[in-house]
Amino acid sequence: MRKQISILGSTGSIGRQTLDIISDTNRFSVYALACHHNIDQLIEQAERYSPVLLVVYDKAMYEPLKSAAAHLNCRVSCGMEGLVEAATADPVDIVLTSVVGSIGLMPTIEAIKAKKTIALANKETLVTAGEIIMPLAAAHGVSILPVDSEHSAIFQCLQGQHADSVDEILLTASGGPFRTLTKSEIAVRRASDALKHPNWAMGAKITIDSATLMNKGLEFIEAKWLFGVSAEQIKVIVHPQSIIHSMVRYKDQSIIAQLGAPDMRVPIIYALDYPNRYPNKLEKLDFFALKSLTFEAPDLERFPCLALAIDSLAQGGNMPAVLNAANEELVAAYLKETIGFYDIAEYIQKAMAAIPKIENPAIDDILMSDKMARVEIRRLLELRR
Amino acid sequence: MRKQISILGSTGSIGRQTLDIISDTNRFSVYALACHHNIDQLIEQAERYSPVLLVVYDKAMYEPLKSAAAHLNCRVSCGMEGLVEAATADPVDIVLTSVVGSIGLMPTIEAIKAKKTIALANKETLVTAGEIIMPLAAAHGVSILPVDSEHSAIFQCLQGQHADSVDEILLTASGGPFRTLTKSEIAVRRASDALKHPNWAMGAKITIDSATLMNKGLEFIEAKWLFGVSAEQIKVIVHPQSIIHSMVRYKDQSIIAQLGAPDMRVPIIYALDYPNRYPNKLEKLDFFALKSLTFEAPDLERFPCLALAIDSLAQGGNMPAVLNAANEELVAAYLKETIGFYDIAEYIQKAMAAIPKIENPAIDDILMSDKMARVEIRRLLELRR
Repeated sequence: MRKQISILGSTGSIGRQTLDIISDTNRFSVYALACHHNIDQLIEQAERYSPVLLVVYDKAMYEPLKSAAAHLNCRVSCGMEGLVEAATADPVDIVLTSVVGSIGLMPTIEAIKAKKTIALANKETLVTAGEIIMPLAAAHGVSILPVDSEHSAIFQCLQGQHADSVDEILLTASGGPFRTLTKSEIAVRRASDALKHPNWAMGAKITIDSATLMNKGLEFIEAKWLFGVSAEQIKVIVHPQSIIHSMVRYKDQSIIAQLGAPDMRVPIIYALDYPNRYPNKLEKLDFFALKSLTFEAPDLERFPCLALAIDSLAQGGNMPAVLNAANEELVAAYLKETIGFYDIAEYIQKAMAAIPKIENPAIDDILMSDKMARVEIRRLLELRR
Repeated sequence: MRKQISILGSTGSIGRQTLDIISDTNRFSVYALACHHNIDQLIEQAERYSPVLLVVYDKAMYEPLKSAAAHLNCRVSCGMEGLVEAATADPVDIVLTSVVGSIGLMPTIEAIKAKKTIALANKETLVTAGEIIMPLAAAHGVSILPVDSEHSAIFQCLQGQHADSVDEILLTASGGPFRTLTKSEIAVRRASDALKHPNWAMGAKITIDSATLMNKGLEFIEAKWLFGVSAEQIKVIVHPQSIIHSMVRYKDQSIIAQLGAPDMRVPIIYALDYPNRYPNKLEKLDFFALKSLTFEAPDLERFPCLALAIDSLAQGGNMPAVLNAANEELVAAYLKETIGFYDIAEYIQKAMAAIPKIENPAIDDILMSDKMARVEIRRLLELRR
């Protein structure tokens, strides 16, 4: 029996790699493909993978998608309702949430309520609402399987071990494209410099987050919720070669690590096939071709976004949502080259100071905090002009 | 309830480290301590750990031990019968077999028959008789828990995984003290040069085996039996820093590794506490203090003992026992500086060619092959004079 899968964000980097890796197996059927607005690519994917349902989030693209899909034997839907439909439809076994940003929150919640296994590639879900999502998943007996390379590594390192024997999660970071630069050199770097990321093929937003180490900060928050540890139990280790994808230090001083070539298709297929490991076409890591593996402490002075993320987790409540939304707005501005590198951290801090803190937020509070943070950032950036 | 433990080889390197690490817990009682001949140290240990039984293998030391232990409230025994008594006594839960050489074989077999959990630090047991021991353990429902750092690492990397998803065992090797030397430089190195091993505190015999890579060859054979893989599924990777203690490559191209400071007490306590991991006093590996981790292919030209060991496994039958016994004799000669480094491999090869091959050997065949190999080596070394 093939597993039926819905891919939310199929035209993004993770979505495309997911389709690539599952096309080599006969273990999956694609139930739904959903994208933000790139309907040309969605149609190409539909022609190849014959989904039952196509969804475009941008409602303006609904009619064009409907026309373009006329020759295909599938339903077409749009907006948040469309994403939720893809996430909850009866035949679906696994929902891969690889949309970028806070759009992923609602469909993930609905998928959990519909008892779907979640393959989670959307960082914002747990960053903004981990405190709500994890108990919800537990209450519905739903597995949340991390797709992100680091969290997949940690999850793999935890297999067959008692949760209470964990001493520390060792979250590795490539250090990003500006790792070796001084603060004054980094200050004048543009988005285009960052977009040549050393190890991983990723989307533009995540690549900038990798350059600021906000990516690691968001993963830090996510790890806290996914693995039920305290913030003090998570340590970031810069490992420029990205061969060790993360580790777990146990209380007996034994460390378990997961390694491999930097290829997102390994954690993707692990989440989809979990707990099985089938042979695939992916590259075999050649240890003799590796130069050396090195490790450094992260520099919070040069990469203040990591410190801000950890601080938002310490503050708790709606603060990680504020941090995340502010960061999304600021990264968009940095990509347009209207702000500089260190403006990202500076304005996130301002947004966190400006937005009122809410303890134990409900989903509505989180979505509202997200909006308020975006409005505040836009206001602050307007004032700059 | 404390676990009752018998330590066969308590005055050796592993035995001493075992007593050291268990003395920090209240989880174990020492039932028996057994040594080869060092009764002074045995008495010291007995005074501290209050065993029920003391054993010396060397029968000439029985009376001296009896006198020396007169003030202690414990039984005294000797010889192979003594080792077997320590290994099988009713109250014993775990038998740690850390004697050196083929002496370990009989007590291990008897312990398995008595349904004791085996913490196996004696390489020769599986090297010479893996084909007998593993089915015997399975038939008696006995766990064989590896104590050797590499096999413990592999065992840890296999936790929570399906055996049939294993692609390769990646057995790491420090490369030994002569790793960076040329063949002609190695040829004139003496035992005393080898005894400054770079990473691990070990006994003299194992240190020489580490210099010849025979140690890795024996571990290769052991891994085949312990983990039920084919020889083709085991790859040796030279990793001079000895931080990664071995790895498992799964069929999905994900690699799980076990890491830590090079301290035998970590795998020892893992075997004794398995499957639990309790906090201990051992050093926390500091990644930021590590220079770099590197990997090389083993050079079978400079280290022919590794090739011989793999070849003995391919030949099967009694050949690993012949290799092992010949090696023990030759390492003893090398330690006395009566033969050179490359004589070890040369004479092992001669012994393997001279001793008749026995397919599907019984334990008696293995013990006989062991003796024949030793006689042959002594004869060959006599001829040299």
